[in-house]
Amino acid sequence: MRTMNPLNDPTSSFTSGEVGQQMYELMAELYPICRSITGDGFRRSLQIIQKYIPLSVHEVPSGTQVFDWTVPLEWNIQDAYIKNHKGTRVVDFHHSNLHVVNYSQPIRARMSLEELKPHLHTIPDYPEWIPYRTSYYNESWGFCLSHKQLQTLKKGDYEVCIDSSLKKGHLTYGEYYLRGQSSDEILISCHACHPSLCNDNLSGIALATYLAMRLNSEPLRFSYRFIFIPATIGSIAWLAVNADSVRKIKHGLVVTGVGDPGGFTYKKTRQGDAEIDKAFSHVLKHSQDDYKIIDFFPYGYDERQYCSPGFNLPVGCFMRTPHGQYPEYHTSGDNLDFVKPQSLEESFNHCVTLLTLLEKNKIYLNQNPHCEPQLGQRGLYRTIAGQAEGANREMAMLWVLNLSDGHHTLLDIAERSNLPFDVVYETVKVLLDHGLLKEMV
Amino acid sequence: MRTMNPLNDPTSSFTSGEVGQQMYELMAELYPICRSITGDGFRRSLQIIQKYIPLSVHEVPSGTQVFDWTVPLEWNIQDAYIKNHKGTRVVDFHHSNLHVVNYSQPIRARMSLEELKPHLHTIPDYPEWIPYRTSYYNESWGFCLSHKQLQTLKKGDYEVCIDSSLKKGHLTYGEYYLRGQSSDEILISCHACHPSLCNDNLSGIALATYLAMRLNSEPLRFSYRFIFIPATIGSIAWLAVNADSVRKIKHGLVVTGVGDPGGFTYKKTRQGDAEIDKAFSHVLKHSQDDYKIIDFFPYGYDERQYCSPGFNLPVGCFMRTPHGQYPEYHTSGDNLDFVKPQSLEESFNHCVTLLTLLEKNKIYLNQNPHCEPQLGQRGLYRTIAGQAEGANREMAMLWVLNLSDGHHTLLDIAERSNLPFDVVYETVKVLLDHGLLKEMV
Amino acid sequence: MRTMNPLNDPTSSFTSGEVGQQMYELMAELYPICRSITGDGFRRSLQIIQKYIPLSVHEVPSGTQVFDWTVPLEWNIQDAYIKNHKGTRVVDFHHSNLHVVNYSQPIRARMSLEELKPHLHTIPDYPEWIPYRTSYYNESWGFCLSHKQLQTLKKGDYEVCIDSSLKKGHLTYGEYYLRGQSSDEILISCHACHPSLCNDNLSGIALATYLAMRLNSEPLRFSYRFIFIPATIGSIAWLAVNADSVRKIKHGLVVTGVGDPGGFTYKKTRQGDAEIDKAFSHVLKHSQDDYKIIDFFPYGYDERQYCSPGFNLPVGCFMRTPHGQYPEYHTSGDNLDFVKPQSLEESFNHCVTLLTLLEKNKIYLNQNPHCEPQLGQRGLYRTIAGQAEGANREMAMLWVLNLSDGHHTLLDIAERSNLPFDVVYETVKVLLDHGLLKEMV
Repeated sequence: MRTMNPLNDPTSSFTSGEVGQQMYELMAELYPICRSITGDGFRRSLQIIQKYIPLSVHEVPSGTQVFDWTVPLEWNIQDAYIKNHKGTRVVDFHHSNLHVVNYSQPIRARMSLEELKPHLHTIPDYPEWIPYRTSYYNESWGFCLSHKQLQTLKKGDYEVCIDSSLKKGHLTYGEYYLRGQSSDEILISCHACHPSLCNDNLSGIALATYLAMRLNSEPLRFSYRFIFIPATIGSIAWLAVNADSVRKIKHGLVVTGVGDPGGFTYKKTRQGDAEIDKAFSHVLKHSQDDYKIIDFFPYGYDERQYCSPGFNLPVGCFMRTPHGQYPEYHTSGDNLDFVKPQSLEESFNHCVTLLTLLEKNKIYLNQNPHCEPQLGQRGLYRTIAGQAEGANREMAMLWVLNLSDGHHTLLDIAERSNLPFDVVYETVKVLLDHGLLKEMV
Repeated sequence: MRTMNPLNDPTSSFTSGEVGQQMYELMAELYPICRSITGDGFRRSLQIIQKYIPLSVHEVPSGTQVFDWTVPLEWNIQDAYIKNHKGTRVVDFHHSNLHVVNYSQPIRARMSLEELKPHLHTIPDYPEWIPYRTSYYNESWGFCLSHKQLQTLKKGDYEVCIDSSLKKGHLTYGEYYLRGQSSDEILISCHACHPSLCNDNLSGIALATYLAMRLNSEPLRFSYRFIFIPATIGSIAWLAVNADSVRKIKHGLVVTGVGDPGGFTYKKTRQGDAEIDKAFSHVLKHSQDDYKIIDFFPYGYDERQYCSPGFNLPVGCFMRTPHGQYPEYHTSGDNLDFVKPQSLEESFNHCVTLLTLLEKNKIYLNQNPHCEPQLGQRGLYRTIAGQAEGANREMAMLWVLNLSDGHHTLLDIAERSNLPFDVVYETVKVLLDHGLLKEMV
Repeated sequence: MRTMNPLNDPTSSFTSGEVGQQMYELMAELYPICRSITGDGFRRSLQIIQKYIPLSVHEVPSGTQVFDWTVPLEWNIQDAYIKNHKGTRVVDFHHSNLHVVNYSQPIRARMSLEELKPHLHTIPDYPEWIPYRTSYYNESWGFCLSHKQLQTLKKGDYEVCIDSSLKKGHLTYGEYYLRGQSSDEILISCHACHPSLCNDNLSGIALATYLAMRLNSEPLRFSYRFIFIPATIGSIAWLAVNADSVRKIKHGLVVTGVGDPGGFTYKKTRQGDAEIDKAFSHVLKHSQDDYKIIDFFPYGYDERQYCSPGFNLPVGCFMRTPHGQYPEYHTSGDNLDFVKPQSLEESFNHCVTLLTLLEKNKIYLNQNPHCEPQLGQRGLYRTIAGQAEGANREMAMLWVLNLSDGHHTLLDIAERSNLPFDVVYETVKVLLDHGLLKEMV
C-alpha cells in the first residue's frame, strides 16, 4: 500500500516519531488551565498557542447578538470548594477544575448535605471519575465529584464556596490566516473551551496548531484559516462576524478527539458528496488503519453550525472514537494517560495527507486527446513489447491521459482507476514534464 | 416502534377493534348479491354503500366509446340451473351466483353431458371450490361448479337454463367527493363488480367506504375522490369521462384484497418514486407487520389504466396477499370465512396512517437558517449539558431544523434521519409553536 | 431460456455447426504467414480475406503523421537464423516466425553465446513455448525461442542472421463498408498484425470476416464498417484518416481472442452506459454461457484509441478469456490446437445476436396511450377470463404497450420487464400488425 507520507517528505520540518510527542507536550502545557467558553483561561490558552503560531486574538463583547444567540457574560473563577464541619476541603477546585460546574454562579453558603445534594453531579457507573458539566445559559451552580467521593460525605453541614464572577466582558477566539496563491480557503476549526480534558479537545488544539506550523513551511495553493473557538457560541459568533466571506471556504474540517487509541472517524459534510468527503474517504481507504466514514447528522461539534442550512458549508469532522462512544468522554478519565503521542501523530499524518491531496487535486488536460500519445518515443514505455500486462506506471499514465478530459480531477481519476492518489499525482508530474498534460485554468 | 395510530387519536370516530368488525359486516351484507360489470347487482351494491356515505351514482350508456373500448350491453340475470333427467337442479344459481359464467348469454336447452361439458368450468386441484369465470366481451355461456360436483354428473340428458338478459342499458359507478382545502386530489379506487367473492374485492369496497367515513369527520388538506367501479371497463370509462381533470390527482391508491391474513403488499406507481411510493414504504417500514414493496407491472387491477402511458398517474395499489398468490383467489373459497375482521382493521389502519402522513407531508422553512437557534433559551434543551448524547427529542428538533431548507418534505426528513414520521411531525408542531419554523407556501 | 439464435433463422446463410469450422479453416490458411504492423505478410493476409469479402485495401505512406505518431518504415523479412559452429540452424525463422523479434533490424554477425544472450527471449515458466516479442519503435533486433532450446545452446560462437528490411513503404489496412438504410454506422474492428498466433488475433479476423458475410445477405438498418488493421498504429492511422466521419459511429466493437474455450468477456465502452453496453449485457445475461461484463480501462486493444478522450466513441470489446489471463497468450502455445471451432461459433452467434438486437432496438409509440387497448376484441387475449395470471404473451403485450411512450427502446422494455429481447420484439410485430404501435420517427 503506497500512501503519501508527508513525514517522509524532505520538505517536512518534522521527523517521524517526534511530532506526536511534541503535540502531546503542548497538550500537557494546556491541561491544567480552567478554560470555559469565555474568560481568562481561554485567553491564557491562546497565549500558549501563540508561542507556536502567530494567532490573532479576537474579542466579541458580551451582549453582542450573533444570529439567534447573545454572547454571554464573561465567566472567571478563582477558587471553589466544599468544606466539612472541620473546615477540611472535601471538594477542591484546585485539585481539579472539573469539580465546578462550568459557568457556575458565585455562591458562599452553609447548608446541609441534603440541601447540597441537588447541586452535586457524579457518574455512578464510573465511580472513580469526576464528570464534566456545564451550565452556560442557565443561572445555576454546582459541583462535580467522583461517585466514590460522594459516598464518603457524611450527614452534616457544609461550607460551600464558588468564587466565580459573571460580568460584562468578552468572548475570545484565536485565528491564524495563512495566505496561499488563491483566496479560496480551507478552514480548520477546533473548540478550545474545555477545561482539563485531553482528547476532547486539547488533542484537536494540538493538531490544528501543528498543522498550521507544518503548512507554514510550504508554498500553498489554498489559503488556510485556523480557528480556536469556544464550542457552539464560538462558531456562531465567528460565522456572524465573517458571514460575508465564508463563501471563500472551499473545504473545511472540524478536528476533535484525535488522541485516543481508537480507529478513525470521518463524518461527512451535510452536502455528502463534497470534495473533502471524497478526499478523506480516499485517504483513509488507502491507509492501513481502521476507519469509518459516517454520514452527517446535526449533532456533534461545530460542524452543526457550519452545516446549518443557511450556510451549508463543505465542512466535515475528523475524530478517532466519536464523542460519547468512549466512557472517558466528558469525565476526568479523559486525561493525559488516555491520549497517546502515537495516536496524535497518526491523526496528524492523515490530515497532512488530506491537505496535500486537496492542494494537488487539480484538473489537467491531455494535450493529445485524439488517440494515445506515443509514450515509447518519449522513453515512457517498455521498449520490448508483448508481455502480458503493462507495468503499473504505464497503466497510471494511460489512466491519467484517458481521463484528463476536463471533467475529472486527479482524485476522480484515482477513484476510477483504483490507484492511490499519489501514484496518479507522480504520473501527472512525469506527463507534465513531457508536455503531454497542461493544468486546466 | 412508534407509529401513528389514528385509532388512538381522540378525533377518531372509531374505536380500536370495532372498525374491522364493522367492515366485515358491510361485506357480509354485500356478499350474496350477484354483481357484474353492469346491471342491477352493481346498482344494489351502491345503494347499500349509500347507507354509509353519500355516493353519487353515474350511469354510462351501453355503446358509449371510452378510448379504445365500448361500454357493453347491460347484463342481468334472474335464474340459472342445470337439471338432470329427474328434474332436480344439480347446479343452481340460487345456491351460488358463481355457478354462472359472468355475462353468460341466455340459454334454454336440453343436451347430453357430452355436449354440456365444454361449458362447464372446474378447478381439479381444489375439488371443493367453484371457480369464478367471466366472458364479458365474448358471446358465450357456461357454468362453474366444484370438481367434486362435476364428477357426480352421470351420462344422460340435462336441461340447461340461464335466464339472463343482455340489453342496451348502462354501466354504473359510484363516486364520493370530499372537498378539502385544496383542489388537489387523492383518488381511492376499488372495483366493485365481483359477485360473491370476499377478499377480491368486497374487502376493498369496505375499506374505501370506511376510509371515506373516517375522513369525513376531519378537516382535510387534500380533496378526496372515492370511486366504486367495475374493473377495467369501469376505470377506463371513468378516465374517459374525467380525462380533463385527472391532473388534479396528486396521489392515488387502488385498494383490493385487504381482508386475508397474509402480509401487506404495496405495489408502486409506474413512476416508481412518487410521493405515495415513499410514503407507503415509510408507513410499512415503521410498522411491525410483514410487508413487501413491489415494482409496478402492467397487470393486476385498475392501476393498469391509471398508469397507462397517456395518464401515468401516481396511483399505487395496496393489497395483502397479491392476486393469484392464494388458492382461494377467484373461487368460492374466497368467502366470509377467508377474510378476518382483524385483517381488515389492520389494512384500514395502514391506510389511515398513509393518508394522515400525506396530509401532513408539507415543507417547512427554518426561520433561523444561519446556525442553530438557541433551543435552551426557549426551554427546548437540557439545562445541564455535557452528557454523552442529546435526547431523541432534541435530535429530532435538530434534524427538522437542519433539513427545513425548502427542499425537504417532512417525509424526506424522516427518511434521512431514520425517525418515524410522527416523531418528525410532533417536533414540527413544537417548533412552529416557538416560531422557529414556518410552512412554506 | 429463449434467445435469438440467428442460426435458426431461415434467412441465415450458415448452418449450425458449420460456421465455426469455416472460421477455423480461414484461420488455418492465415496461420503460417509472418504478419507485422506493416509489410507483405499483412498484405497477403488481406488478399486471403478478399476471397470472402470485397475488402478495399488502403496504404498509408511511411512518415505520415497520424496524431502524435508517425507511420513507421515498412518491415519485411525473408529469413533469420542462429547457426552454431557446425553451421546447423539452431534457431530457424522458417520453423516459426515467432523466432524473430518482430521489426528486428537486419543483422549478420558472428558472436559468442555471451554476446548473443541479451538478444534472446524465452519464457522460463513455460519452457516449451516460444514467446512473441516486438520492437516496432525502438531500433533493436532479437530472437525468441523456447527456454528448453536456450538451455541446449552451448558456449561458443554463433552465426546470427536476420535478413529483414526496414524501408520507406506503407502501412496497410483493409476496410469493408456495407451500406444500410441509414448512414449511422456500426464499426467492427480487429487487429490483423500478429504473426502465427491464433486466438490473438486470427480468431478476431475470422469472426469479423464471417460477420461481414452474414450481414451481407440481409437488409440492414445500420451501415457497417469492418476494419482489419495493425494494432495501435493502425487504429490511430485509421482515426486520423477518418477523423471527420467517425461521429457516424453509433456502436462499435473490437473483436479479439474469441476462439479459446474460456467464458465470454465484454469490456464496456469508456462511456459505460452506451447502448451497446446495455445490449451486450442483455445478450450475455439471456444466454446460458459463463460471462463477465467488465468496466473500461485504458489498456488492451484498439478500444484504447477509439475511447481516447478526444473521440470517446461508444466502442466496446468482445473477447473470451482476456489478454494476459491465459498462459498461451503471446506465445507459440496460442496455436491451432488452442482455438476450437465450437468456441468460434459461439462467439459468432453472440455477435450476430448482438447486432440483430441493435438493428431491432427502436422506439415505438403506443397508438392508444390512454388506458389499455382492448386486446380481446382483436383476438389477442384469453376469451374466458378469471385465471390467476395472464399468459406470458399477454404480459409481454402489456409491457410493450405500457412502456412504448417514446422514452423506452425495446431493450429498455426488455430490461424493465425482465423479458428476453426477442420476446419483446416478437410482441412488437404482433402489435404493429394490429395497428396498436407505430415506429417513432
